[in-house]
Amino acid sequence: MRNLSSNITLNRPQPHKVDKVACIGTGTIGGAWVAHFLRRGYQVRAWDKSADTQGRLRQSIETLWPTLEALGLAPGSSIEKLTLSPSLESALEDVAFVQESVFEDMTLKIETLSLIDALASRQAVIASSTSGFSMTDMQTACTHPERTVVGHPFHPVYMIPLVEVVPGEKTDNATVDWAMSFYASSGKSPVKARDGVYGYIANRLQLALWNEALHMVAAGEASVADIDRAVAEGPGLRWAMHGPSLTFHLAGGPGGIYDYVEKKSAAVRYDPYSRLAPPLFDKKLINALVEGCEEQAHGKSVEKLSTERDRFLIELLRLKEQMLK
Amino acid sequence: MRNLSSNITLNRPQPHKVDKVACIGTGTIGGAWVAHFLRRGYQVRAWDKSADTQGRLRQSIETLWPTLEALGLAPGSSIEKLTLSPSLESALEDVAFVQESVFEDMTLKIETLSLIDALASRQAVIASSTSGFSMTDMQTACTHPERTVVGHPFHPVYMIPLVEVVPGEKTDNATVDWAMSFYASSGKSPVKARDGVYGYIANRLQLALWNEALHMVAAGEASVADIDRAVAEGPGLRWAMHGPSLTFHLAGGPGGIYDYVEKKSAAVRYDPYSRLAPPLFDKKLINALVEGCEEQAHGKSVEKLSTERDRFLIELLRLKEQMLK
Repeated sequence: MRNLSSNITLNRPQPHKVDKVACIGTGTIGGAWVAHFLRRGYQVRAWDKSADTQGRLRQSIETLWPTLEALGLAPGSSIEKLTLSPSLESALEDVAFVQESVFEDMTLKIETLSLIDALASRQAVIASSTSGFSMTDMQTACTHPERTVVGHPFHPVYMIPLVEVVPGEKTDNATVDWAMSFYASSGKSPVKARDGVYGYIANRLQLALWNEALHMVAAGEASVADIDRAVAEGPGLRWAMHGPSLTFHLAGGPGGIYDYVEKKSAAVRYDPYSRLAPPLFDKKLINALVEGCEEQAHGKSVEKLSTERDRFLIELLRLKEQMLK
Repeated sequence: MRNLSSNITLNRPQPHKVDKVACIGTGTIGGAWVAHFLRRGYQVRAWDKSADTQGRLRQSIETLWPTLEALGLAPGSSIEKLTLSPSLESALEDVAFVQESVFEDMTLKIETLSLIDALASRQAVIASSTSGFSMTDMQTACTHPERTVVGHPFHPVYMIPLVEVVPGEKTDNATVDWAMSFYASSGKSPVKARDGVYGYIANRLQLALWNEALHMVAAGEASVADIDRAVAEGPGLRWAMHGPSLTFHLAGGPGGIYDYVEKKSAAVRYDPYSRLAPPLFDKKLINALVEGCEEQAHGKSVEKLSTERDRFLIELLRLKEQMLK
């Protein structure tokens, strides 16, 4: 099994050499995946079990095309590279990557993934757009579950770069690595989460923020509109460039996140700012923060990162002013 | 008292007619306030009890000027409009607005505010940059505490529009309204929070998000760098334009936030996405959400708002690509 698996992995094309993908399920999310892959120059085979849904796809891609042009088309991208496949089998023929986006129903997901698994070529990687299910539960009927993985996009898929990659219990590490590389070479920003984290990463963080906001509203501490403005005219501007830890890395001065957490520790650790208490700031957590910020800094000093961020903010603020007037 | 207060209020200049302000305390935050007001064309009287700190101010404003130019200068703005006042008394003479930004120490804040209160003209509004104290505690030594208010900026002050306005127990409503209008006409985006909310609005929300992120890191659910990327390449892009509730208003389809909460209620209310449970979604909270989103929508449909947001995202993504390459 280990050997077979290795052979299969070896036979997989390199992620950046893939030029053809299958999109199974072409509703709102699946159709937006089709748009993403076409924009990036791939040949796309699309199939939906509803002939109606599949029939509307070309028209909706045509409507979307000016938006894709505005986002920037890869060389060679064309609506002509979209094939509406007459059957699931023909859609899957000879593709190395399959994005499944059928309706969010566990029975349907299990059934669809097992069908794709049975029909797709042996080395193909199969990703599911599910926004909440665990691949461990969805891969149960697959003969080759090791090549199935969650690839959860953010909508609009052709616009927001984030895709969350989550393995199931039986998923190979090689599959995760391949999927991460493939998404990155398709112009996405993939991140990895552990199986069993309900809501993956971004929805969990979104909800944490919103829950705190809702508690403020319920307690009469601030209005919905003022809370929204406080985000969009404050920290939200920074979060468009740097995530929460890197933001505090820049707030820590030359010593970065270590100084932020260590020296300002009393305030950071114990101030009851949020209704959710932080975890214990032990050595392990502090190390993870320092390493995570260094990984993103690519050797740049806090000062250099701050200068870049400020240059970004100037342009972002100009842009907002233009767009909102 | 009521009459006196009304007369005082009537004698206040209209917020948009103010052309001269005093900045007391000219360290990092105070100096950045000076930069903000100069950029917006105000005459600024600056004073710091440290002659050294005050002495460095002009140089640091000169260094900052190209950044202020890039952000856009108001007609008539000039470094020449900065006066380094020889005394607190002369700095306060004949100004309608005072921004206090001395070191974050309660005793110093109480003392400084009471001095400003004694020396400033009777109708002047006095705002404190404090990032955490309650004005109720800081205004105790003032003879006229009704015209004191928290005006907490986000740094860099001359760049990030947000300012949080928080009254103390003895602050007049008229003072809050005047300060909100004044900040808005100075190019800031003011929001109002209730007294006693430690961390006001934005820091509380930032910390809620970060605490959830830290719990994920501590539990080994995702890496610091992947969590940061998940924000900056996902919801963070939207938060640069729309806050958390308006974001879900757009996710609710034509029915907006009401449909999002009511129809998807099961998922929104009970999914254990975040470690902080949301408050009870009762009628009052739902009404507050609907009204808060309508207030921000200015009569625009969800479709129209979504189109605008997408146009913003296209430009924002282009900008990020340019800045990061």
